[in-house]
Amino acid sequence: MQSFEVNKSDIQKLNKALEGTDSELLSLLKEYHSSEIAILFENLNQEEQKRIINLLPSEIASEVISEMDLEYHPEEILINLPPEKRQEIVEELDYDDATDIISLLDEEDQHEILQDIDKEDAHNIRTLLNYEEDTAGGLMNSQLIKVQATMTKKQAIDEIIAQSEEMEEFYTVYVVDEHDRLQGIISLKNLLKSKASSYVSDILNEEFIYVKTNIDQETVANLLSQYNLTSIPVVDDEMKLLGRVTFDDIIDVLNEENTEDILKISGVSEDEELSGNWKDAVKSRLPWLCLNLFTAFLASSVIRYFDSTIDLLLILPAYMTIIAGMGGNAATQALAVTVRRITLNDLTDQQAYRTVLKEFTVGLTNGAIIGIILFLVALLYDSNPMLGLVIFIAMAGNLIIAGVAGSAIPLILKKVNIDPAIASSIIITTFTDVFGFLLLLGLASKLLL
Amino acid sequence: MQSFEVNKSDIQKLNKALEGTDSELLSLLKEYHSSEIAILFENLNQEEQKRIINLLPSEIASEVISEMDLEYHPEEILINLPPEKRQEIVEELDYDDATDIISLLDEEDQHEILQDIDKEDAHNIRTLLNYEEDTAGGLMNSQLIKVQATMTKKQAIDEIIAQSEEMEEFYTVYVVDEHDRLQGIISLKNLLKSKASSYVSDILNEEFIYVKTNIDQETVANLLSQYNLTSIPVVDDEMKLLGRVTFDDIIDVLNEENTEDILKISGVSEDEELSGNWKDAVKSRLPWLCLNLFTAFLASSVIRYFDSTIDLLLILPAYMTIIAGMGGNAATQALAVTVRRITLNDLTDQQAYRTVLKEFTVGLTNGAIIGIILFLVALLYDSNPMLGLVIFIAMAGNLIIAGVAGSAIPLILKKVNIDPAIASSIIITTFTDVFGFLLLLGLASKLLL
Repeated sequence: MQSFEVNKSDIQKLNKALEGTDSELLSLLKEYHSSEIAILFENLNQEEQKRIINLLPSEIASEVISEMDLEYHPEEILINLPPEKRQEIVEELDYDDATDIISLLDEEDQHEILQDIDKEDAHNIRTLLNYEEDTAGGLMNSQLIKVQATMTKKQAIDEIIAQSEEMEEFYTVYVVDEHDRLQGIISLKNLLKSKASSYVSDILNEEFIYVKTNIDQETVANLLSQYNLTSIPVVDDEMKLLGRVTFDDIIDVLNEENTEDILKISGVSEDEELSGNWKDAVKSRLPWLCLNLFTAFLASSVIRYFDSTIDLLLILPAYMTIIAGMGGNAATQALAVTVRRITLNDLTDQQAYRTVLKEFTVGLTNGAIIGIILFLVALLYDSNPMLGLVIFIAMAGNLIIAGVAGSAIPLILKKVNIDPAIASSIIITTFTDVFGFLLLLGLASKLLL
Repeated sequence: MQSFEVNKSDIQKLNKALEGTDSELLSLLKEYHSSEIAILFENLNQEEQKRIINLLPSEIASEVISEMDLEYHPEEILINLPPEKRQEIVEELDYDDATDIISLLDEEDQHEILQDIDKEDAHNIRTLLNYEEDTAGGLMNSQLIKVQATMTKKQAIDEIIAQSEEMEEFYTVYVVDEHDRLQGIISLKNLLKSKASSYVSDILNEEFIYVKTNIDQETVANLLSQYNLTSIPVVDDEMKLLGRVTFDDIIDVLNEENTEDILKISGVSEDEELSGNWKDAVKSRLPWLCLNLFTAFLASSVIRYFDSTIDLLLILPAYMTIIAGMGGNAATQALAVTVRRITLNDLTDQQAYRTVLKEFTVGLTNGAIIGIILFLVALLYDSNPMLGLVIFIAMAGNLIIAGVAGSAIPLILKKVNIDPAIASSIIITTFTDVFGFLLLLGLASKLLL
């Protein structure tokens, strides 16, 4: 079976059904999984989305809402639903999903939604709304299975079955003391395998990974990935068990963090919505382009400084663009490899030093090879061996600068606790533009005139 | 608790212990989780790694080996171990991990390892070695829990407990018929909750996601992420259950695919090892730089064509670099947003069309704003309003081309089933260099001379 991809025929069928009666529409929707409906929603307007959500049983409707990408504004569908339907859907939502969606509304709308629903649900969602979105507290779900260490095997199994009524899935059983403080974990497998006379405390695993609410989501993702966990418990300062972060949230976090990395490295603000409109895109990218404009003035002032050299040797601008362009691309290569390496593994000082040394060597090698090609072009096409020598030195020098800047700048940023990915290609290519022009034009003015 | 980061004191302690006796070393190692030892290994040489693996109990040693990043060559440690220790470790490894590591060896070494171990293990690993590394077959693990649909509740629970002896974790119980063909899944929770007189077939869920062995790992990752699954069963053409892919493998796949995307978009071969040596880096990047050199000659030939224009207006090279540089960065921005969007969601034709239209508008807006700034510079600094007008048009035009090329090229590549991420910044910036120079110099030669 293939991953679900929206194709034309699905959309055509849906559009046709939207023109028909409610029952025709409903019978088409039954063919799809809720996560598939969530993807189809991206092609509908809000009126159509509202009609479908209203039509679906609240259980399915809440799944669709929770599967929607937040970029497509599930909160707007929710706030515009009739109060009764909305109440049913919100009560069906997992607390963490409800919190993510409701947090996108203003305070007045949040209040309107929360006052209607079950008081305990409202309390739990209000608590979650207080945590930062990108921390363990913001990611966690308070629905989990927990037993007391003093329970017998039979008591524990009964308790697990009773608590699991309301849960879709659970992976780990948490063990707490009488004050709800986390003592350890047990696996259902070990519980089943244990003797009938066992207590939970007999099979309790006291070595376990946990996080506090304020831990950054990237750290939570790394922990889960490093220790191959399906979920991580979240506790407060007194070790009281508040919730758990599950692997499916972490997969979303990984995709989100990776999007941020690719965008930042390319000089786009990390919070630009991929499917946002052009105004948001301008707001997100124009500041970076203005920064680039400022750095481009630096490069262009180098050129202005040497304009008498260019006047005497009109072939230089054609080589300038090659040397600057190659430097920019080599720097982007070194930057991408280094940033990605920092993201996946923290580097020790020695590893960082070796990385810069490696990029120096790569720059020297590539620069020498490309430099020789350019030397031959200058010799054979422009019949100017001395020009060829200048170009060779400028090319090799610029690729060495590209490698060193492309690797050292993100490593230094990481060292001083700034996100290395903001060392975007925009900042790095300034180095290679300025130094490339300086090398080529400076050497040309000394050696060729 | 924080994610484990190697710090100096860990390494110093380890280096000191490596100078001491085996028992001192072993007692230090006991303080670390196997995945932490795997990270510490990155700072050791092969002799030291071999000594530690030899020292550790085979169960822990196999965990360390399986947690090592393949870039740090666990296969070389394995092949150099004494045969007995090696046999114990390989037999402890999960089949999928064993296969990943053994596949890195040449055929002779593979044979040497496999002939020593348990015959059934060797058979299973040989079967897995036949699947492509980046498919469901290459990712899957043949260790799983399965029961027959005809079993009673009690039979099923006994069977599950018996089968789980050898497994660290399991998440889903698969149900097969007498020919081992997959019939559906059951959750342990539902099995426990069912009446004592139930049969497996009573609680069998027949709607489930599965994949065939040849399905690409990116598709498997998307399915698991979309349907929030802990694992996906892998079947052959006759629906025979062969294994399962678990979420922890998928987290690795996501990180791997994201690394590939960032590298490709930056003009680095996708298979460059992040921690590889400089020779591998040169091999991986030089071909892209040579491609860039070829495209840079295109841009530079535009400049050569207009050298008489430059001769008459020596201010032009300073503006050329600004217009080309801004175009390259704007194209990289559009490229990053579009490639990332394609990776996370497939786009319909209509969405693709809207994306290009959006990037056109973004390019026009940013280009006009930056163009006005440059117009003012030309007016106030160079006192040349006509030059300002030419620069304004060239800037706006180049950013429009940047937006359209940066979004349309990856979308077209995707449409014809080529990986959109190879539309790297190297290829896209050629467009903006060539068209930027053409616009600026062409307009200058007509309007300013």
